[in-house]
Amino acid sequence: MIQLGFFIEILSIEKYLSEGKKFIDGSLAQFLPDESAYPKSIHESMNYSLLAGGKRLRPILVIAAAEAIGGSRDVVLPFAVAAEFIHTYTLIHDDLPALDNDNFRRGKPTNHKVFGEAIAILSGDALLTQAFIVMTNGFLMESVPRGNVLKAAHELARAIGSTGVIGGQVVDLESEGKPIDSQTLEYIHIYKTGFFFKACIRVGAILSEANQDQLSALSRFGSHIGLAFQIVDDILDITGDEDLLGKDVGSDQDRNKATYPALFGLEESKRKAEELVEQGIANLGEFDERAEPLREIARFFIQRTF
Amino acid sequence: MIQLGFFIEILSIEKYLSEGKKFIDGSLAQFLPDESAYPKSIHESMNYSLLAGGKRLRPILVIAAAEAIGGSRDVVLPFAVAAEFIHTYTLIHDDLPALDNDNFRRGKPTNHKVFGEAIAILSGDALLTQAFIVMTNGFLMESVPRGNVLKAAHELARAIGSTGVIGGQVVDLESEGKPIDSQTLEYIHIYKTGFFFKACIRVGAILSEANQDQLSALSRFGSHIGLAFQIVDDILDITGDEDLLGKDVGSDQDRNKATYPALFGLEESKRKAEELVEQGIANLGEFDERAEPLREIARFFIQRTF
Repeated sequence: MIQLGFFIEILSIEKYLSEGKKFIDGSLAQFLPDESAYPKSIHESMNYSLLAGGKRLRPILVIAAAEAIGGSRDVVLPFAVAAEFIHTYTLIHDDLPALDNDNFRRGKPTNHKVFGEAIAILSGDALLTQAFIVMTNGFLMESVPRGNVLKAAHELARAIGSTGVIGGQVVDLESEGKPIDSQTLEYIHIYKTGFFFKACIRVGAILSEANQDQLSALSRFGSHIGLAFQIVDDILDITGDEDLLGKDVGSDQDRNKATYPALFGLEESKRKAEELVEQGIANLGEFDERAEPLREIARFFIQRTF
Repeated sequence: MIQLGFFIEILSIEKYLSEGKKFIDGSLAQFLPDESAYPKSIHESMNYSLLAGGKRLRPILVIAAAEAIGGSRDVVLPFAVAAEFIHTYTLIHDDLPALDNDNFRRGKPTNHKVFGEAIAILSGDALLTQAFIVMTNGFLMESVPRGNVLKAAHELARAIGSTGVIGGQVVDLESEGKPIDSQTLEYIHIYKTGFFFKACIRVGAILSEANQDQLSALSRFGSHIGLAFQIVDDILDITGDEDLLGKDVGSDQDRNKATYPALFGLEESKRKAEELVEQGIANLGEFDERAEPLREIARFFIQRTF
């Protein structure tokens, strides 16, 4: 058994995140057709956006949730990678001219700027599909009951569907340039961002055979930190450093988007995000030191500058 | 046991197809969020394209393959419906201005013409996602081993990924206006159309616990008729009736697309399609009269006028 003191001592969140990122980055290729696979343009395009960087927070949350209840990162790895495929697909499609019309992402030209709109659309489609190819590949999951694999894939699918991430994106698009109330803003943030974070945490737990109490506690944790993450995203769009963020700042304002700071002011938004993280962490009272990375990731969500 | 003679007598393929279509049409709603669900535009858009018509050939093939080996249409229904969600998603995205830029589909304005490009992109994404929500919903599949459910979802996912339908679509797009050889044309047809048909047949069989011999025979059947279907599609783009087809004819020629008739002439293309169907049916020699619908669907593929 690891001693609590020792564990906290060695846990630097920066190190945990950078090692998690390295683990995911090193694993992506084995779950994808080779970049040179025919037809070449689509595989180059998929690889381009996947390898353009990114903090890999969603896969790291899958892993951290699994490890919090004694699960193994190797077992949940396919789902962790699938979560990054899905995240990247949403970025490629969100950046399209018909949607956010963004030119830069993760410090590089957006996918459609490099490969054209047709390939960018198909590349997003292919990454979404690839996520399900990987999640349903039974060979990768010898150590998890088939029912749990299905359940985990189902959770992730629901979180990103028309009553999840896509629903949030629709309301976000349709709210541009309009005055919206705090309820609508919260809907956008929870659906567009929060659900997916929560699902990643639940997936890691389901695949590691969490019991019902653990799953409920982790869900509440996920809901809170997911919303906190998006509030901080809004804040960074005002106060952030373009070089660190790898994307334009001020784009929400340019687009006349409703944000937390726009509705509540910067200070109140920061306070709200901090409160959410504290409330989220409070749900992990029954978890031991193996949940420390989860707690630290939550704290990182509000301290981050990129 | 049904007598062979009696069965053939009562089997009218038109009746089988129209009843299959009715069964699928009547089942779509239970696997989708309600049209009035929030946010409304995305659910209206998904429903619009789904309910715009269509022969429901892919879901009917899932069912016919299941029934050919003694399986039940009620058990495979979720996957049959999922196949139609996937087919509809590919149509919505293919019709987009950045891809085929089509104005009419199934006799109605294309999705982006009615809902705009952003919603059309997201609506395709949502239908693809919905297919996986439905396929991984274990509650619907009480009578199928979990491993088979996973395997079936995996088959369908692979068939539509970057080395399947999407790959075919990419090569199709990149071949427009260029002289291409028969090998590339066959690649496009097999990947863009054939793989998905074959996967529908395999999925129906896998969920009905087909043995390896049955699965192999059905796969060969599926490969042959899938290619035949696309060759006939090319032919109908020249000889077909716009009202019956519900889409513009001559669009391949307008777009300078390579097609079977363009490469081999109309007569040779018809002969090739007929030969493929005969060869396909020859693989079903070990199947009894319960495979008669599959055989008749194959024959319909080359007799169809729409």
